[in-house]
Amino acid sequence: MKNKLLVVGTVAFDDIETPSGESGKILGGAATYIGLAASQLSVDAALVSVVGGDFPDDYLSLLRERNLNLEGLKVEPSGKTFYWKGKYHKNLNKRDTLVTELNVLADFSPEVPSDYKDAEIVLLGNLHPAVQLSVLDQLGTSPKTVVLDTMNFWMDHTWDDLLLAVAQTDIITINDEEALQLSGENSLVAAAKKIHSMGPSYVVIKKGEHGALMFHKDTIFFAPALPIASVVDPTGAGDSFAGGLAAYLSSGVKLTPESVKTGIIYGSALASFCVTDFGTSALLNLDKSALKKRLSAFKALVHFDENIDL
Amino acid sequence: MKNKLLVVGTVAFDDIETPSGESGKILGGAATYIGLAASQLSVDAALVSVVGGDFPDDYLSLLRERNLNLEGLKVEPSGKTFYWKGKYHKNLNKRDTLVTELNVLADFSPEVPSDYKDAEIVLLGNLHPAVQLSVLDQLGTSPKTVVLDTMNFWMDHTWDDLLLAVAQTDIITINDEEALQLSGENSLVAAAKKIHSMGPSYVVIKKGEHGALMFHKDTIFFAPALPIASVVDPTGAGDSFAGGLAAYLSSGVKLTPESVKTGIIYGSALASFCVTDFGTSALLNLDKSALKKRLSAFKALVHFDENIDL
Repeated sequence: MKNKLLVVGTVAFDDIETPSGESGKILGGAATYIGLAASQLSVDAALVSVVGGDFPDDYLSLLRERNLNLEGLKVEPSGKTFYWKGKYHKNLNKRDTLVTELNVLADFSPEVPSDYKDAEIVLLGNLHPAVQLSVLDQLGTSPKTVVLDTMNFWMDHTWDDLLLAVAQTDIITINDEEALQLSGENSLVAAAKKIHSMGPSYVVIKKGEHGALMFHKDTIFFAPALPIASVVDPTGAGDSFAGGLAAYLSSGVKLTPESVKTGIIYGSALASFCVTDFGTSALLNLDKSALKKRLSAFKALVHFDENIDL
Repeated sequence: MKNKLLVVGTVAFDDIETPSGESGKILGGAATYIGLAASQLSVDAALVSVVGGDFPDDYLSLLRERNLNLEGLKVEPSGKTFYWKGKYHKNLNKRDTLVTELNVLADFSPEVPSDYKDAEIVLLGNLHPAVQLSVLDQLGTSPKTVVLDTMNFWMDHTWDDLLLAVAQTDIITINDEEALQLSGENSLVAAAKKIHSMGPSYVVIKKGEHGALMFHKDTIFFAPALPIASVVDPTGAGDSFAGGLAAYLSSGVKLTPESVKTGIIYGSALASFCVTDFGTSALLNLDKSALKKRLSAFKALVHFDENIDL
């Protein structure tokens, strides 16, 4: 039985420069990447976001064609869509933000479509935690799994709201430095323990090219990253990762350490495609057989013989 | 059938400061860590190295008690043992060398014991490549597997000798930055391909807390690292890793991608113990049952359900 997946996040214009070239103004945003990643798993997903009157109908059609419900995607005809321009350094692990124009995102008040107020899985994409909280407030008390993606910016500027959102979270996805910052600890093991006590029973640490870690009680899971010969554009990798994870959890499985592990592999596989082209191109060109092959590659990547005699 | 393992590397005094404290002057050196790691696997191993008259008999006994053959460990009564003093930064991934006194190492001319000239596995620990080459020159042409550990210092200062040693190497172990430096490439995938063409058919990339990668032809293997709650002293982790790998390959298995993968897990497990105490303490206190448990933990760390339906 499929579950409903509710996604809140940005739908945006990105303008990206990497050592491979310049993208120009293209489709971007956390909810966009999450939705496109999730749509590979035939989920029943709705996006909650906001765009301006300048947002092309073609982009809306593109999302609709992927069976993403857009009832909660508000169009503000007189406003402009959120715009981000950034430039990646040579090693691609660092980037500089050149321009951020919040535009319609500045006053974004999310509205959850009534059909999705009982969504079993809620993915709160990287956004102001007050917006994330507003979505949770609309969902009532029905049993649900909350996946929260966030970043250091919100830890620096909206600490109290962030803590409230984290308290209602089952699965948090952050990078390693952010885990140390959020917890105030010096090791990931200690950080995960502290973050467990703040709410999330699953702490998922994104390490980019170094893979991902999952902490749940005394269980640790180490997910590999597939070494990629040429990374073109890392934008959206973290969102694709979270989208793949949440989509797998929406596929009718129960929330268990095992299902979260498998979900992390789905997310890792989708992120490994995402980075091979600018913006959403690689996700848009992906088909199920390529994804299936990639999932097998992740299995092979970590397999070793059980010969552990001494 | 067990094979012979010949190890060349430093036997030294280390003096280590980490955020956890100061070690004082203690037993160290690449060959020491390699030997102690290898001795966990009941191998027939010999160390080739040099120490001064100041090297305590107790340390020699300690190595002998581990069944390490010391015929090739020269003692120069009038000389002083190689001494290294270093201080680790707070995050432990960086360290400053405070003192390096080469002492007897400056004129080290390795002599391979005659019983080990037909060793099936040769581990050339991190040392001047001219010394590594001198060992290979003494071994004749018998079929053997050469494992070479090196670092950026030798790339900066002894490039030509290093290339000659690499050309005779089957398995090279280096870190990710060093792989890029050695190959002149920008990605690990491209680097591994280039390094294959320089000699080693196996390129093993040590990434510390992020695990390790193995490249062999079109095969990639991603070995996890066990997240450690409190790393006390990273010194010797890379040597323990190489020692575990070489020791596993000396246990009578054939050299195949599968045996190298399993060897990498042995090495990773031994390195995961090494860092939990100053110097060689953790390796000295390790017993087989703890190692066996740790190997199982590595297996569990990367296991996920095969459910890859889309």
